[in-house]
Amino acid sequence: MNHYSSLSQTELRELKNSLQKSFEEQKALGLNLNMARGKPCKEQLDLSMEMLDLVNGKSDMMLSDGQDARNYGGLEGLPEMRELFGELMDADPCDVIVSGNSSLTLMFDVIASAMTDGFDGSLPWIQQGTLKFLCPVPGYDRHFSITEYYNFEMIPVPMTVSGPDMDLVEKLVSEDPQIKGIWCVPKYSNPQGITYSDETVRRMASLKPAAPDFRVFWDNAYCVHELTDQPDQLLSIFAACKEVGNEDLVVQFTSTSKITFAGAGVAAVAGSKKTLQNFRRRLFFKTIGPDKMNQLRHLLFLKDMDGIYQHMEKHRKLLAPRFEVVLEHLKELGETGTARWVIPKGGYFVSVDVMDGCAKRVVSLCKEAGVVLTGAGATYPLGKDPKDSNIRIAPSFPPVSELEAAMKVFCISAKLAAVEKLLEDAQG
Amino acid sequence: MNHYSSLSQTELRELKNSLQKSFEEQKALGLNLNMARGKPCKEQLDLSMEMLDLVNGKSDMMLSDGQDARNYGGLEGLPEMRELFGELMDADPCDVIVSGNSSLTLMFDVIASAMTDGFDGSLPWIQQGTLKFLCPVPGYDRHFSITEYYNFEMIPVPMTVSGPDMDLVEKLVSEDPQIKGIWCVPKYSNPQGITYSDETVRRMASLKPAAPDFRVFWDNAYCVHELTDQPDQLLSIFAACKEVGNEDLVVQFTSTSKITFAGAGVAAVAGSKKTLQNFRRRLFFKTIGPDKMNQLRHLLFLKDMDGIYQHMEKHRKLLAPRFEVVLEHLKELGETGTARWVIPKGGYFVSVDVMDGCAKRVVSLCKEAGVVLTGAGATYPLGKDPKDSNIRIAPSFPPVSELEAAMKVFCISAKLAAVEKLLEDAQG
Repeated sequence: MNHYSSLSQTELRELKNSLQKSFEEQKALGLNLNMARGKPCKEQLDLSMEMLDLVNGKSDMMLSDGQDARNYGGLEGLPEMRELFGELMDADPCDVIVSGNSSLTLMFDVIASAMTDGFDGSLPWIQQGTLKFLCPVPGYDRHFSITEYYNFEMIPVPMTVSGPDMDLVEKLVSEDPQIKGIWCVPKYSNPQGITYSDETVRRMASLKPAAPDFRVFWDNAYCVHELTDQPDQLLSIFAACKEVGNEDLVVQFTSTSKITFAGAGVAAVAGSKKTLQNFRRRLFFKTIGPDKMNQLRHLLFLKDMDGIYQHMEKHRKLLAPRFEVVLEHLKELGETGTARWVIPKGGYFVSVDVMDGCAKRVVSLCKEAGVVLTGAGATYPLGKDPKDSNIRIAPSFPPVSELEAAMKVFCISAKLAAVEKLLEDAQG
Repeated sequence: MNHYSSLSQTELRELKNSLQKSFEEQKALGLNLNMARGKPCKEQLDLSMEMLDLVNGKSDMMLSDGQDARNYGGLEGLPEMRELFGELMDADPCDVIVSGNSSLTLMFDVIASAMTDGFDGSLPWIQQGTLKFLCPVPGYDRHFSITEYYNFEMIPVPMTVSGPDMDLVEKLVSEDPQIKGIWCVPKYSNPQGITYSDETVRRMASLKPAAPDFRVFWDNAYCVHELTDQPDQLLSIFAACKEVGNEDLVVQFTSTSKITFAGAGVAAVAGSKKTLQNFRRRLFFKTIGPDKMNQLRHLLFLKDMDGIYQHMEKHRKLLAPRFEVVLEHLKELGETGTARWVIPKGGYFVSVDVMDGCAKRVVSLCKEAGVVLTGAGATYPLGKDPKDSNIRIAPSFPPVSELEAAMKVFCISAKLAAVEKLLEDAQG
């Protein structure tokens, strides 16, 4: 098949008719499919059901530190869970706080703490006038929402195949003291599935920010979430920071939301004593302690890093075929030159760049035919994709058969939108 | 026994010698007892163990609203849990948000939301200069900590047997727009066990604050936590507000922390659409959803209000004998005129006023003899009890035998401190 851009107007018009016919056929099927959110599917959730039987009506609830898992207390989490998360994040367990069911909430609260208390003796952010945050794009909408909530001016930084454009990051961060942070999903990034190269990690760890209270928000959400036999290797950011004496620069987050139960997992944050000091104080004032029973449940189920790796293999078996369906269908778009994407080796998404100016139209066409996608633009701060080209596909939730149907609709919609655009451009 | 105040100096000196001897005897026992925090005891926690078997490896996880309890979503909680908490708080389920394991965290976050976003169109609190909060005393230290964290000037309001001194509350609230809230534990108050009278509830609901963004923080922590056959009846604050057209005035909180598991219960907040609007927005930005599995667990276990009442009867059987031990020992202090207290009909504490100027000394003597009490002054903002007389006793955690031993130490310490004080005053 020729690239659509090389077709004549007559050929395009014929193609449009044929695509419209296909589209109407799909629409007539009355589909009701959803590829919008990175939700684990039922079979993935079923993988952790036995965890529920490990803490039961007959369980011993006394923890290794002498606490009763059921009672108040244990502000920073079970010692063993702090160790396990320490391994996941390559952090000293003393620098790890395990709390609640959501790493997003921890990120929100670290920023909330900085707003009112700053970092390590700096002025509270809220007293520092215009605040700015670097947002690698495309990126995770819920990250951008947090900085939107706190009225940050969000500066998009383009992603490259090795991570955020570090020339730009270094320049901006070293020049502008109003820039207080950067959102990073360093392994299998949301949505592109890109893993930061060693050089990117080292350059990130070596940043010399104009603002002493600048922090790197390192959301290691997909640290063990492989789709292939050749996992990407992410350099340890904490080790890299230590090498250059920049230990206070990074706050790292992760959770078991996509290891055990999406809504009932365990989340953790890690950072240096100085960096987490104010957050710890906030935590002390706002809670008497986390749900230690859920932490105990996780500990007995996952056990250790080997346990986690073995468990993640089971997820991979369910997820990899879903990604294959998506990637297989995308190939036909590639042949027409109407879409570009990175093949992810892990994570939860496939990021597709359709033809410039077509993303909203594709999402709208899909919706018309019963396929819900993440809103176009969602991967950009304030939902504004300047090229209107990026669409995030989330293959995890629907069964393979539904994915097949949904991707068929997606591909027809992407082609139809492209043809419409090419004809419009030719006439305009 | 005569009141100590009627004793001569000689008699006091003799008494001091005898009490010191008793104290040394107690000290020699090498006790290690704790009446410091309102933690449920092991037997209380055991009452809810079967809850753990109700959501198990074979459970159906599909909720009535079509959601999977294990997955993301369900921001405001399970519909049935919102209904149940609605009954507990006499609130419309639509006005109830069920979230997390801690009502303290919900209180913190409602205040945090008001700091940055205000209430219902008002200026963010943080932009309004000096902020003030009314603190009925003695009160709950963790309430005062939240307003301490946010730098409120805390104005103590004396408690009466029918609740906070409403003459003073009405005067202060109607005159000073910098006063933004009042902390209330309306039933079996922490620490005195006082239930607000109908008149107090009605006057609270009818407040006409100078600040449009003033709110009553109604922490109904002990709403079903009875110790006797004649429960106190608390008037519904929401109904009282509605009667006078003051629906936006109150934010109510409660939790199952002292119904099921202290560290792994479920908490809820209720308030009008306008009052919770900004909090809801904050919640939307900071989390994808609460732990719905724990909510499901609670729903299957507690079922309905009858289920809760029946379950609370079991708690009462464990708690009432503990309170009896405390009250029985206190009687001998009463006879000496060295302490006053209210007999609580529910809740978790006995609030004892020892002789003025003696609370710190009593706590210190107890500690010396191996009995840990809540720090003297903890029931006052910033830990400053102007009379140095209030001590909060928490009888729930220790076994009855330990309570007997601990109360013996407490009574000797209270008497010894009183005698020391009387002698000092006589000489001074």
